[in-house]
Amino acid sequence: MATKFSDNPNRPPSIVHRPSSTVHRHIVALAGGVGGAKLAHGLAQVLPPEDLTVIVNTGDDFEHLGLYICPDLDTVCYTLAGLANPETGWGRVDETWNAIANIEKLGGPAWFRLGDQDLATHLERTRRLKEGQTLSQITSDFCKAWGISQKVLPMSDSPVRTMVDSDEGVLAFREYFVHRRREPRVKGFRFDGVEVAGPAPGVREALESAEAVVICPSNPWVSIDPILKVIKTIDKPVVAVSPIIGGKTVKGPAAKMYAELGIEPSALAVARHYRTILTAFVLDNADAAIESEIKKLNIKTLVADTLMNEVQNRARLANEVLRFIGSS
Amino acid sequence: MATKFSDNPNRPPSIVHRPSSTVHRHIVALAGGVGGAKLAHGLAQVLPPEDLTVIVNTGDDFEHLGLYICPDLDTVCYTLAGLANPETGWGRVDETWNAIANIEKLGGPAWFRLGDQDLATHLERTRRLKEGQTLSQITSDFCKAWGISQKVLPMSDSPVRTMVDSDEGVLAFREYFVHRRREPRVKGFRFDGVEVAGPAPGVREALESAEAVVICPSNPWVSIDPILKVIKTIDKPVVAVSPIIGGKTVKGPAAKMYAELGIEPSALAVARHYRTILTAFVLDNADAAIESEIKKLNIKTLVADTLMNEVQNRARLANEVLRFIGSS
Repeated sequence: MATKFSDNPNRPPSIVHRPSSTVHRHIVALAGGVGGAKLAHGLAQVLPPEDLTVIVNTGDDFEHLGLYICPDLDTVCYTLAGLANPETGWGRVDETWNAIANIEKLGGPAWFRLGDQDLATHLERTRRLKEGQTLSQITSDFCKAWGISQKVLPMSDSPVRTMVDSDEGVLAFREYFVHRRREPRVKGFRFDGVEVAGPAPGVREALESAEAVVICPSNPWVSIDPILKVIKTIDKPVVAVSPIIGGKTVKGPAAKMYAELGIEPSALAVARHYRTILTAFVLDNADAAIESEIKKLNIKTLVADTLMNEVQNRARLANEVLRFIGSS
Repeated sequence: MATKFSDNPNRPPSIVHRPSSTVHRHIVALAGGVGGAKLAHGLAQVLPPEDLTVIVNTGDDFEHLGLYICPDLDTVCYTLAGLANPETGWGRVDETWNAIANIEKLGGPAWFRLGDQDLATHLERTRRLKEGQTLSQITSDFCKAWGISQKVLPMSDSPVRTMVDSDEGVLAFREYFVHRRREPRVKGFRFDGVEVAGPAPGVREALESAEAVVICPSNPWVSIDPILKVIKTIDKPVVAVSPIIGGKTVKGPAAKMYAELGIEPSALAVARHYRTILTAFVLDNADAAIESEIKKLNIKTLVADTLMNEVQNRARLANEVLRFIGSS
């Protein structure tokens, strides 16, 4: 079964007209892993720290080797802190792999490559969770320790588990993603626990004070949908940046998922995916030809260079998105 | 309260006379951490692998950061495998410390210095224990992976927890040893769980087939007593190597413990400690003057160079101990 947003009867208002010199323009970014982290990093470079809140998917959190691992939260935090591996986009820069190499020698599960520095995050988070601290408290403390002055919030302090319904049965997301290498054909998604998982402390307040919500170029199905399911409604302007460029994803299986669900993967498909909440949409230059199709959905559009392979492109794209919000 | 052995009414037989050319002479070594591991390593160098079983204290096993840590088992295994840090005697050679450094940055507990390679041992052991494997199964597998062909057995698969009764109250051993840096004055010891903890599979069989039992130069109070409490009786010749030289310990708090318990720390005190089970005793050249006092306990003696600061001294001492056993 494919996921659909609960239809929002109140179409969100259009983006408020404000001069670009306005001091306070709180932005809430919704982010998954690598692609989302890059735009969040761009926004962090161009906004005052107090004006950015990043709400991060926790649907693919999982337990491994007895450790509680939050891949998207860690990718966002490592990226904002300048600690991320620039080659992969995830994990730590200048990482060593001595623990996992020795686990492998002992015949243990080494399919999830945990670096030594990265292990510290999981060990200390797991220890604190067992002590009764919440994921949002822990994330806040870790952000301080890593020198991150923006607010980074897990979407929820309660467990939500993204399950992939596939031709090989229902798989936990990480099992599908890492262990099964995205090979099974997806048939739909399920977010176990999402009905009872409330948003983490600070999520509602951030959305209330937001001028606009930016949906980062993350996987709509498995990175953004879980967040939207948890926060339920957004009554602020929403601008999404397409994670699909020229029918393909920069990274990750979003395009493959669209195709397997019988939808042609394209920026248009993404805009349709979010249409009930979307005010505006940013698509790549490569997709300029389908801009008019998207406009027909009554969604404002910006065509931009959305690739963020170089660090400097993150701030450039963030600035373009913010100007687009201010001028819409 | 100080621990005493249950009095053994059957004084063990004297060591069997055998020509030194005898092929099979199974030796069981009882060992704690660093000192015990060194003599076990010496024995491993001079005996055929199938003729040595090392039974290791697990009384100071503890949980930390959610990991099940067996300091003595790991020290013995790392030493036998040639993986131990030659500087400290414990931990791994060529170790890195990236995980613990990052745990410290996150404000986590860094008082127990876990190296990155060492972490793998604890992570994989904890994972397997949670799966339901026993400590002895896991230890056997790890020994294979590390290329150890001697049998290394935890004293028990059931938890035994050495508790130190001190002027600061009752402390778990590792808390006393590492966190409180052996500063509290000891009043006695308690081994929680020892009454119900049976010996691990293989322990009884090894003792039955043994020609002699060697008590390695480990702490009598907290490394050897727990093993003796678990195995209850030994009906084989027992030779102990004194961990106290010239009234001092090479490493660790044994001498301090004797003094705090009102007993002058000396090789004689160690011989008295073990007297109900002891056939023979090895003391250091530095203590030659008290050899006659020990002989008065009806215990055979060997005066030797018992320091094993250099690796080559381990095999030399092991050979002297084996010749002493063969000739007693």
